[in-house]
Amino acid sequence: MKVLIIGAAGMIGARLATRIAADGRIGDRDVSELVLADVVEPPRPFGTLDRVDTRALDISAPGAAEPLIANRPDVIFHLAAIVSGEAEADFEKGYRINLDGTRDLYDAVRAAHDEDGYTPRLVFASSIAVFGAPFPAVIPDDFALTPLTSYGTQKAIGELLLADYSRRGILDGIGLRLPTICVRPGRPNKAASGFFSNILREPMNGEEAVLPVPEEVRHFFASPRAAIEFFLHAAQIDTAAVGPRRNLSMPGLSATVGEEIEALRRIVGEKAVKLIRREPDETIMRIVSGWAPDIAATRARELGFRAESSFDEIVRAHLEDELGGTARV
Amino acid sequence: MKVLIIGAAGMIGARLATRIAADGRIGDRDVSELVLADVVEPPRPFGTLDRVDTRALDISAPGAAEPLIANRPDVIFHLAAIVSGEAEADFEKGYRINLDGTRDLYDAVRAAHDEDGYTPRLVFASSIAVFGAPFPAVIPDDFALTPLTSYGTQKAIGELLLADYSRRGILDGIGLRLPTICVRPGRPNKAASGFFSNILREPMNGEEAVLPVPEEVRHFFASPRAAIEFFLHAAQIDTAAVGPRRNLSMPGLSATVGEEIEALRRIVGEKAVKLIRREPDETIMRIVSGWAPDIAATRARELGFRAESSFDEIVRAHLEDELGGTARV
Repeated sequence: MKVLIIGAAGMIGARLATRIAADGRIGDRDVSELVLADVVEPPRPFGTLDRVDTRALDISAPGAAEPLIANRPDVIFHLAAIVSGEAEADFEKGYRINLDGTRDLYDAVRAAHDEDGYTPRLVFASSIAVFGAPFPAVIPDDFALTPLTSYGTQKAIGELLLADYSRRGILDGIGLRLPTICVRPGRPNKAASGFFSNILREPMNGEEAVLPVPEEVRHFFASPRAAIEFFLHAAQIDTAAVGPRRNLSMPGLSATVGEEIEALRRIVGEKAVKLIRREPDETIMRIVSGWAPDIAATRARELGFRAESSFDEIVRAHLEDELGGTARV
Repeated sequence: MKVLIIGAAGMIGARLATRIAADGRIGDRDVSELVLADVVEPPRPFGTLDRVDTRALDISAPGAAEPLIANRPDVIFHLAAIVSGEAEADFEKGYRINLDGTRDLYDAVRAAHDEDGYTPRLVFASSIAVFGAPFPAVIPDDFALTPLTSYGTQKAIGELLLADYSRRGILDGIGLRLPTICVRPGRPNKAASGFFSNILREPMNGEEAVLPVPEEVRHFFASPRAAIEFFLHAAQIDTAAVGPRRNLSMPGLSATVGEEIEALRRIVGEKAVKLIRREPDETIMRIVSGWAPDIAATRARELGFRAESSFDEIVRAHLEDELGGTARV
């Protein structure tokens, strides 16, 4: 099986590539070739695979997608996007990359489909940013997409196109609405959602972190480990069981900031918790109040997608996957 | 006030143009200029307006929208689209006109907005084709858009773009999800939905009509007269009261085919009903079973949009607006 990952230099994309290169397979199918593409050259993962190609390209450039499709990958993971903050700040860049880049990819598949019947599995990284407040207490699978950012709008359009191209048999798509990823590895960034990860990651490293919102704030999370499993599972499932509604809210954990902190206390200890500094920020509180508190993800759970059921698991996943099992505090 | 209607040669667009030209105003604002555009030269309406321009152009042609925006219309009615059947049969044409044509229009407004702060009211004709089965008994305002046609997909994307461009203050948009229009004037056409109108319109003209589905089939309707009022009302409402969810399911009448026929019997008589010939068609029954039976339209009703509450009203509207008040049977 030939596999293409677009957006393979990103946080999830790189971990997905590492995992596939290490396993040499997805489920019970051997991977014969892995192509990793991103706007910067993706890191080359270690592993048992002979054929790993890395490519640097801008998917929104005219004709960029065709060469990626030339060898007819069986599975395409499409994670390339510019993030929410940048898509909001730069209108044209956001639409060019997140909308046109995605549509160009689908249309490159369509051209190949028209040529020889090529119909790859295409797994599209969407986001809970497709939802916009006001929400019910738990967002059901049939809740309207009313995004409140250009990024969410672009992801929602990517979902609609994916469903229509799948319905027409041009590709075999699955869209995954990812929860907020926590604990997000790496350094703190300026995303409004950053604190959810910062208040766990930095203390586990013996460093201070700022908490800008009250402990009662509730949001919806999955670990990077769970996210990788979503993508691998989506590559394998029987899409006949999915039907025409190809975009699925992924399962996750609905939890408050207070519950995050309690898990940190239980797993790592009071010393880590003491590194969290309260510094209320009205702007961040306002932004976060527009985010989904809980998502039912009924269909995805029925289709076998799994996520963590406690913050203890999320903290342990970070310790194991990023810190070799031991906190540095 | 300057008014632009794109799609002014269509069934609703032409009637909207006629109405505005006759009134010389929308609500309490005088119309100083009316520009009518369509892919074929729109008919020139009679009326009191001095300045009525008609233009033939393809809105999906590069640069087509700019000249329409050059004089900065205060209100833009965007009804141009190729219909469901054609968008399904011709993939590229559907996406080019219904998606790219709409986006080009919004982007022409954006260019003008960037130049001088221009922010027109833009009323977009969407459709209940944005919904896809399975449905609840009554579709609520926050129900997911999961279209089962490329036309519905293109309309749903037009809605998402309208909301995002409005949220950014580029334009002041309102999207109207129109119910199935009944009684649709003109000759019978091959649309799967055609029979809903045919079984009223043809008998009122003393002609036979074919009914391909059982009388129990339920669907959601508004008259052409109600649709015109939706557009005029949308041009005037205070969008601050609408908020960020700019796309509204319009009110209508949920009724069965049997209720249609009973109204025809009451208003026109048994002689008309006898002209309906039962000819079951499995294909049409299958298509129609995927259509919305009822839509709550709670927000639109709260915002003052009104439709008929019985099929008697719909039959009478057709008699008055199209037949001078008297059936020809």
